[in-house]
Amino acid sequence: MSRFLDYNHDDPSPAQEFRLRCRTEEFRSPTAGYCMDFVQTNVTFLPQEYSTDFLLFCQRNPKPCPLLEMTTTKTAEIIAPGSNLYTDIPLYNILENGKIVKSCTNIEEYQDRGLNAFMLGCSFSFEHALIKEGVPVRHIEEHKNVPMYITNIDCRPAGVFRGPLIVSMRPIPADLVNKAAEISARFPGVHGAPIHRGDPSLIGIKDLQKVDYGDAVTINPGEVPMFWACGVTPMQAIITAKIPFAITHSPGHMFITDRANSFLDVSNLTYKYELR
Amino acid sequence: MSRFLDYNHDDPSPAQEFRLRCRTEEFRSPTAGYCMDFVQTNVTFLPQEYSTDFLLFCQRNPKPCPLLEMTTTKTAEIIAPGSNLYTDIPLYNILENGKIVKSCTNIEEYQDRGLNAFMLGCSFSFEHALIKEGVPVRHIEEHKNVPMYITNIDCRPAGVFRGPLIVSMRPIPADLVNKAAEISARFPGVHGAPIHRGDPSLIGIKDLQKVDYGDAVTINPGEVPMFWACGVTPMQAIITAKIPFAITHSPGHMFITDRANSFLDVSNLTYKYELR
Repeated sequence: MSRFLDYNHDDPSPAQEFRLRCRTEEFRSPTAGYCMDFVQTNVTFLPQEYSTDFLLFCQRNPKPCPLLEMTTTKTAEIIAPGSNLYTDIPLYNILENGKIVKSCTNIEEYQDRGLNAFMLGCSFSFEHALIKEGVPVRHIEEHKNVPMYITNIDCRPAGVFRGPLIVSMRPIPADLVNKAAEISARFPGVHGAPIHRGDPSLIGIKDLQKVDYGDAVTINPGEVPMFWACGVTPMQAIITAKIPFAITHSPGHMFITDRANSFLDVSNLTYKYELR
Repeated sequence: MSRFLDYNHDDPSPAQEFRLRCRTEEFRSPTAGYCMDFVQTNVTFLPQEYSTDFLLFCQRNPKPCPLLEMTTTKTAEIIAPGSNLYTDIPLYNILENGKIVKSCTNIEEYQDRGLNAFMLGCSFSFEHALIKEGVPVRHIEEHKNVPMYITNIDCRPAGVFRGPLIVSMRPIPADLVNKAAEISARFPGVHGAPIHRGDPSLIGIKDLQKVDYGDAVTINPGEVPMFWACGVTPMQAIITAKIPFAITHSPGHMFITDRANSFLDVSNLTYKYELR
């Protein structure tokens, strides 16, 4: 057990308990607001033959694709020991040839296909830090999904995977813009520093009220739109590649890990050899 | 050209000029102290069938193996456009079955073997930041190679690659220990924060004067030994795996990229979509 968690080995952590609630299908909803101190991840399952391309795509595009773990087994052994990736996510999407053909709460029927699973960081971790340090996060205030937009910036391609950078947007009061940038920069494992602030047209976004994914949010006078690389980017690349078979978590229905968010903060010095 | 470089497109940058000096074999020496503002990398060439294992090894052990780029071509297209990895490194080692069989200044004869090249960050980048911010770096003061030690900490294995974490050590005056940790933490792409400070026996090092690699340095009264994950770790893993064929740079003879060191500082907010 890592030093940042004080739980007794005999008792399950809140994250372990939450995963059990998903496993028994008691919990099937979006995970925003649950286990707030723990890292939540995007999860993608791919046939083994696409793994090298996808690893490279993540490596070449670390801001939208911050890979926290890749596994060839059914367990996220580093970030969530004891987990079962085939049961512990509230809702999954099954994709065939780039189209969602089914959603389900359990994918055990696919566990003999030799899939590899990739867990990518999600903005919940730095949003938690923003709120704790006094920076408002509008879509949370308005109980909405974060607004997301397709940009005119291309990801670096890798094998079959390519496509535009997709960003999330948060309107930030002008006097807190630098603070918001600095806080998120401390979390390179979950998208890191923003990629742009101000004029949306400079990155190919015509109208902030016309989202490509998620919900539009209120932008008040004196607020600056800030744009972060978004985890929908790799999902879109997988859909665009039209590979015959893939599974992802259903958007918003994330995988809860045993990692504390604070662990991903590079300014939090642990003096311990650990994944970072 | 990225915003942090002011060079005119028509003129080669100092890094490009330096690579040309290597290409013409005018320069064949260790690179410490050259092109100090630019990121220098370790480089490993592996047969394609080991690439996924090695990518995973880097991903699972990001502190010793901070992968900055992987390429299937002869050019580091992201961090050093226009480079030729088969000529632009001052000295190479050819490995067969885990043994160095030859050193040479040019490896063009191997360029049709379908090797993949991996470029990993090196501590020169954060040492430059330490010195600029007033933290002394002993081995540089003493014109020595950094002292390196094999620890009792195991890396997370990946396929054929496994082995102990190897660390570099820098003795730091007690009142600068936190500063040194904070500065290096801003550079996760080049080993990041230290993994340990103080008592060497806690990580399996018996005697700091008995190095496993590099040179021993003076430790003055009032100084604390600080330990960082070291890029010799993946080299050792490659040697231990005894794969039939591999090429690495010769230790100390690094590949000079076009990236400014400041680009790897996560606190340096660029608001630009770039590799980080």
